[in-house]
Amino acid sequence: MEEDLPILTMENLLKKAGAKRVSESAKLQLQKILFQKITKITRKANNFSNHAGRKTIKKSDIELVIFE
Amino acid sequence: MEEDLPILTMENLLKKAGAKRVSESAKLQLQKILFQKITKITRKANNFSNHAGRKTIKKSDIELVIFE
Repeated sequence: MEEDLPILTMENLLKKAGAKRVSESAKLQLQKILFQKITKITRKANNFSNHAGRKTIKKSDIELVIFE
Repeated sequence: MEEDLPILTMENLLKKAGAKRVSESAKLQLQKILFQKITKITRKANNFSNHAGRKTIKKSDIELVIFE
């Protein structure tokens, strides 16, 4: 799953927030936290689409995760 | 900022959660939500590093965002 959120991307995102420098462990920590959040969101969205009798995740499934 | 979270990555992440198919608008919605979450996390981490008198974001800054 690491290939989905490259370490270089973590550095870019932190620098866009204003960081002058970013430690290696900070990049890894951001990557870890984002994976946790993404896993939670995508699993719930998949459950919601299954619950609606669909095999396709739609925009409304993602929205339901956020607004539940 | 879109180049940091490509649409294809959104599809991969949703499929890893078990989705058979993913609508285009679902991918865009996931991307939008992740950008919001990332912006919130990285801005706070940058504020915390500044508050500690540093110009380098460290692992502890990211952790503080999550545990605050």
